[in-house]
Amino acid sequence: MIDNGITAPRGFLASGVSCGLKKNGKKDLAMVISENLAVSAGIFTTNVVKGHSLMWTKNKIQSGYARAIVINSGCANACLGTRGDSDAADIALYASSLIECEPDQVLLGSTGVIGFPLDMDKIKNGIKNAFSSLSHEGGTVAAQAIMTTDTFPKEASKTFVINGKTITIGGMCKGSGMIHPNMATMISLITTDAAISHELLDKALRYVADKSFNRVSIDGDTSVCDQLVIMANGQGGNTPIVSEDSDYEIFVSALLEVSEGLSKMLARDGEGATKLIEIRVKGCEDIESAHLILNSVAKSPLVKTAFFGQDANWGRIFTAAGYSGVNFNPDLVDIYLGDLMVCNNGTGLSFDEEKASEILKKEEIIVTIDFKNGPINDRIWTCDLSFDYVRINGSYRS
Amino acid sequence: MIDNGITAPRGFLASGVSCGLKKNGKKDLAMVISENLAVSAGIFTTNVVKGHSLMWTKNKIQSGYARAIVINSGCANACLGTRGDSDAADIALYASSLIECEPDQVLLGSTGVIGFPLDMDKIKNGIKNAFSSLSHEGGTVAAQAIMTTDTFPKEASKTFVINGKTITIGGMCKGSGMIHPNMATMISLITTDAAISHELLDKALRYVADKSFNRVSIDGDTSVCDQLVIMANGQGGNTPIVSEDSDYEIFVSALLEVSEGLSKMLARDGEGATKLIEIRVKGCEDIESAHLILNSVAKSPLVKTAFFGQDANWGRIFTAAGYSGVNFNPDLVDIYLGDLMVCNNGTGLSFDEEKASEILKKEEIIVTIDFKNGPINDRIWTCDLSFDYVRINGSYRS
Repeated sequence: MIDNGITAPRGFLASGVSCGLKKNGKKDLAMVISENLAVSAGIFTTNVVKGHSLMWTKNKIQSGYARAIVINSGCANACLGTRGDSDAADIALYASSLIECEPDQVLLGSTGVIGFPLDMDKIKNGIKNAFSSLSHEGGTVAAQAIMTTDTFPKEASKTFVINGKTITIGGMCKGSGMIHPNMATMISLITTDAAISHELLDKALRYVADKSFNRVSIDGDTSVCDQLVIMANGQGGNTPIVSEDSDYEIFVSALLEVSEGLSKMLARDGEGATKLIEIRVKGCEDIESAHLILNSVAKSPLVKTAFFGQDANWGRIFTAAGYSGVNFNPDLVDIYLGDLMVCNNGTGLSFDEEKASEILKKEEIIVTIDFKNGPINDRIWTCDLSFDYVRINGSYRS
Repeated sequence: MIDNGITAPRGFLASGVSCGLKKNGKKDLAMVISENLAVSAGIFTTNVVKGHSLMWTKNKIQSGYARAIVINSGCANACLGTRGDSDAADIALYASSLIECEPDQVLLGSTGVIGFPLDMDKIKNGIKNAFSSLSHEGGTVAAQAIMTTDTFPKEASKTFVINGKTITIGGMCKGSGMIHPNMATMISLITTDAAISHELLDKALRYVADKSFNRVSIDGDTSVCDQLVIMANGQGGNTPIVSEDSDYEIFVSALLEVSEGLSKMLARDGEGATKLIEIRVKGCEDIESAHLILNSVAKSPLVKTAFFGQDANWGRIFTAAGYSGVNFNPDLVDIYLGDLMVCNNGTGLSFDEEKASEILKKEEIIVTIDFKNGPINDRIWTCDLSFDYVRINGSYRS
């Protein structure tokens, strides 16, 4: 892993500007372009309600190609009727006129409050400024411009070699609240200079998302604007990846590393989070059971507040597993906080409270639940539920 | 509705004492007996993990009869292996020796922290004291003794007439956190002096629970100790209800009134709650869709923090409906805060913020989501998510 994000791969330029959508004057518009048309794929929210900018991208990316993406924070462009759709089209049209490409090659993303229309004058002015400040070092300012309640920009990248050519994958994302499995989880853009077919890029993205972005839970809410887009411009000069050979495996492995890095940042920066918590299940009967249990434990407000309070209240973990909908034998279950066993075969142990306290004081905590009932192990990342989560979300809109 | 709870019906005695399970010296053991053997029925947690006291009650109530119930707070008697089961049996045996009945006629309930064994000396001493202080006016102290993080005791009762006889139904419950539909929701006891067959008592309880206790959501967590028990001792002298006639309808209607009263108290006293929120759905395609949407909205931490912040962020309500798993047409959806429409046909309205603010300041808020897609209307009660929820649950065990 190296520092730097979406401008780490060759041939990508980015910028981030303030156009006035955020009242506090912070950056709120990011632009990213590839010097050449890039093979592109995306994963989009499973929410029935979908934002207008997201719908534009979901439709246009079906061509398999894109040149650019414009992402604004501060306003979701969602639930606005036909106006939201025409605003999305206008943004793409305006950006394309500057980039000199087709409007359909400009993807969009919007995140922020629902139900308020975009101020199009501000947006267009922002796009003009963003276009004129595009640079090969603009990844970090772009990552800043897509933040909402995030406390730090989230970037990751990875360099590797495919048939003698150095290839790079870079990524950025924004998250914080409203993140949960079974959807595309947040707004994220991944860029790469690898040459790869659309079919395999799409396949790799779905495989990796399921093991990374779809394994993050902040509050169980899933937003109407969540999307993950990948653009591959081939400037790395590798022999194009067109079959699931060892080159493809290397690519997928690096993509997973970048995605896992971003995913852990999302959990660590969950709204008000003070801790990154990795919940692991062992010995589950099947993959579906493992998912259900992980989601149930990671979503439980009682589990999350206990971690905030550094309270070794493992009964809440057991309880959340118990109402997950999975039928397991409670008398086989072991539970560990870090490496400290607190429950053995469903029965509480009188464990060393001081040692538990040491473990729970840490900023990264691993919880393991062993069902001893099958071959499946899995994990999810989440965070604690703090006073600050309530503070942030009790006053987000105003 | 009249004041008073489980001792409002004839022939029930109750008491509540402090036996030392709660560190702060508050009441922690309740005893309730019927002067004669009562027809009894119960509904129990759907959690795979089940407390030992609950399992005793779940098994013994299958006989259809009970004389008494002993409920302790401060310790859940759960996840303790065979010791938990034998402690439960010992409590019933000891109580039955005082009451002079069969141990199998003594039901149990335990609520509190999981994984710590009961102090049986304290419990037995408490039962002795509770037995000696049983009275026909003891309903309220019993309701106090089953409280955990509840801020007030929850009681309701209702008097009505069946074939010339005055019949009473009374109830008490404890709740606060860990309450959610699709299980028996909390610890509740309902008493009545009606004469009714076991079959119809059981049927009435299930019907009513589904419309009341199973329509309360605090934090989405469901406990391992949650149970609802009803005892009917027939002392009201009505001709026994043995068929689904008009007497049965009157009984069910009164039982629903008591149960709804208790359910609303549960939501109003949700941990840290500052508001009682009633979420209504209209025009759903079927009952299952209505349930899924109600649960999704009522559980959403983003919705609940917005209400705490008195923020008219209806986009979060729409979003939570959208990820409920129900496939609806967002372009038909209207959303109201109180009687103020904020979203029409899926599109945000520029509503009067001052009026919204007036509505959101109230202690009781009704939210209506109209899908215009079918005949089904339904509702759920929940509360907001406040700083105090985090404070209470960040330090519950210690």
